Amino acid sequence: MSQPEFLPIQWKSTFLSLLDQRALPGKKEFLQIHTVEDTIDAIRDMAVRGAPAIAITGIFGLTLGAKKKSGNIIPEEIDSLINQVFESRPTAVNLSFALQEAKKRVGEETDWESIAKIWESFALEMMVDDLKANQALGQNGAELFPKDQNQIHIITHCNTGALATAGHGTALGVIRSLRDQGKKVVVYADETRPFLQGSRLTAFEMLEEGIECYIITDGMSGWLMNHRKIDAVLVGCDRVAANGDTANKIGTYNLAIVAHEHNVPFYVCATKDSFDLNLKTGDEIPIEMRKESEVTQFDFLKTADGKYLLPEGKTSPIGARALNPSFDITKAKFIKNFITEMGCFVPGEILVRLKSV
Amino acid sequence: MSQPEFLPIQWKSTFLSLLDQRALPGKKEFLQIHTVEDTIDAIRDMAVRGAPAIAITGIFGLTLGAKKKSGNIIPEEIDSLINQVFESRPTAVNLSFALQEAKKRVGEETDWESIAKIWESFALEMMVDDLKANQALGQNGAELFPKDQNQIHIITHCNTGALATAGHGTALGVIRSLRDQGKKVVVYADETRPFLQGSRLTAFEMLEEGIECYIITDGMSGWLMNHRKIDAVLVGCDRVAANGDTANKIGTYNLAIVAHEHNVPFYVCATKDSFDLNLKTGDEIPIEMRKESEVTQFDFLKTADGKYLLPEGKTSPIGARALNPSFDITKAKFIKNFITEMGCFVPGEILVRLKSV
Repeated sequence: MSQPEFLPIQWKSTFLSLLDQRALPGKKEFLQIHTVEDTIDAIRDMAVRGAPAIAITGIFGLTLGAKKKSGNIIPEEIDSLINQVFESRPTAVNLSFALQEAKKRVGEETDWESIAKIWESFALEMMVDDLKANQALGQNGAELFPKDQNQIHIITHCNTGALATAGHGTALGVIRSLRDQGKKVVVYADETRPFLQGSRLTAFEMLEEGIECYIITDGMSGWLMNHRKIDAVLVGCDRVAANGDTANKIGTYNLAIVAHEHNVPFYVCATKDSFDLNLKTGDEIPIEMRKESEVTQFDFLKTADGKYLLPEGKTSPIGARALNPSFDITKAKFIKNFITEMGCFVPGEILVRLKSV
Repeated sequence: MSQPEFLPIQWKSTFLSLLDQRALPGKKEFLQIHTVEDTIDAIRDMAVRGAPAIAITGIFGLTLGAKKKSGNIIPEEIDSLINQVFESRPTAVNLSFALQEAKKRVGEETDWESIAKIWESFALEMMVDDLKANQALGQNGAELFPKDQNQIHIITHCNTGALATAGHGTALGVIRSLRDQGKKVVVYADETRPFLQGSRLTAFEMLEEGIECYIITDGMSGWLMNHRKIDAVLVGCDRVAANGDTANKIGTYNLAIVAHEHNVPFYVCATKDSFDLNLKTGDEIPIEMRKESEVTQFDFLKTADGKYLLPEGKTSPIGARALNPSFDITKAKFIKNFITEMGCFVPGEILVRLKSV
């Protein structure tokens, strides 16, 4: 299986090398993490982002903590170490589950050396599992395109790439798999306001891998579908309801409607943990409203110490109001297929396909 | 007829007071223009923008030039003065027509004092005509909304307001007319990437007039139509073909498709000079492709001397590519009505309504 040109999380036995996502897209800098304290700082300060990536990083942090100790353990020390890592991002569900599993795996071991080895293996296993799921998903997605078609033109929204995962990504995983089949892929990346994950992260990943990519603003997709042949829209997702309604980054729903109008297939890439069968429809998915200043003042352009790079009143008048829903719900009727590690299926098949897992 | 709180072009008999649009939206500064040379600088340096506004400003510039002279004219001086103003923006068709008319109006006059008066009257007449056309359009548009409905929620795209005209605007003119009828209007302004005319100019105008306004990113309209009752989408236009296909700022077409999906009426505000009956369909309207850096590097954030306010690699990776079509074509089938100074009509009526003008 091919690896992307840059792996955001690289384990070097005695330390962890982490791509510092705060410096993107301008600089590609790796942090060398030697201690659990440095790991916690990296998670807390957003040097690493994305649920799978944070969980994997956390377990490598435990490993580094255990490696610094020697002799026999005191049980309280294990709890304290795990708790320390948990506190770096208490709301990260994947991290919390991974830490519970890490504790279980200590079992009857009593010396730090053995425990360090157990945690190291667990972190590497998580990394491989995540890569494998993403690669299976990518492979399944690639099969939706005709074998004899050598050029594929795709529109993406937000970032669903290697940066949030162990290194392959979901929607960008499909694109990597198509490229690995020898196809020429051209990507049009919605810039994805307000946070510009498309122009900052997707464009970065594509540039790193030498995949042709053009940034478009979120209002250009209709024009593009009229002027160039677009083969598919590929997006990721945050949560999928039992009927197929899908929550994803704001702007996804508009893109789905526009794709439907132009008969361009709209595919949602989802690993099995994205499906929430307890939710009947998208109406039950709560939408987080974020700060107005992300829209009016371009919050992502703040410096590390929280100062705005742009003078106030530059991108909107002082006192202007805004709405800032973080996600929207794409109705199932606009989704042609879900692309998952278990195969591709239409919204109506979700219950059957997920219940058999 | 009510006037907006700020008139971008104000004639003060001995000088012209011009709202400096380069300082918007952060500061409301007026330039005091006393000479034809200052007028030319203001047009050339984009202190004033929008076709009608530029033409009016140009004729006030001629007036200021004539006022500085005395005694009898030498015909070459007239030509030279007119040519000087023309050179400030040679591509502005409205300015060019206005200058031709200004020359014609000199007629048999031989002294500068009389000519200054002729030009002053002509400029004031243009200003009044533009205001009247915009106000008739605004009035006609307001009549599309139920008389007994007190709250109106509208989505806009780009800026089609007082700033580009003598002081009322087209789509924002309808909003002003609704407000003048005593209705409470709530405006959701698409920020309109890449140049942010929505968040910089529309939000500024609404704030100035105390009309409730929320900036949204260009990908939020679908979410908004699902979550709040939206009564209409109002946009301006650059050019309308005989079949009703309409060129307007990039992002308009996506908004029209999304409105159609949600059964929200989509109205195009157009003065009669926007209709080009020589064009059969929108396919014949050429689309200007603009600089990629407007998308990748936020060109509107440059300083007066052309330096970027943001370090390179901040909003996209260095070397990233982009597409930047300036306009898109909204297909006639998505347009419920054209709102004009001559009344409101469906796309199919264009030929009949325009040929009788």
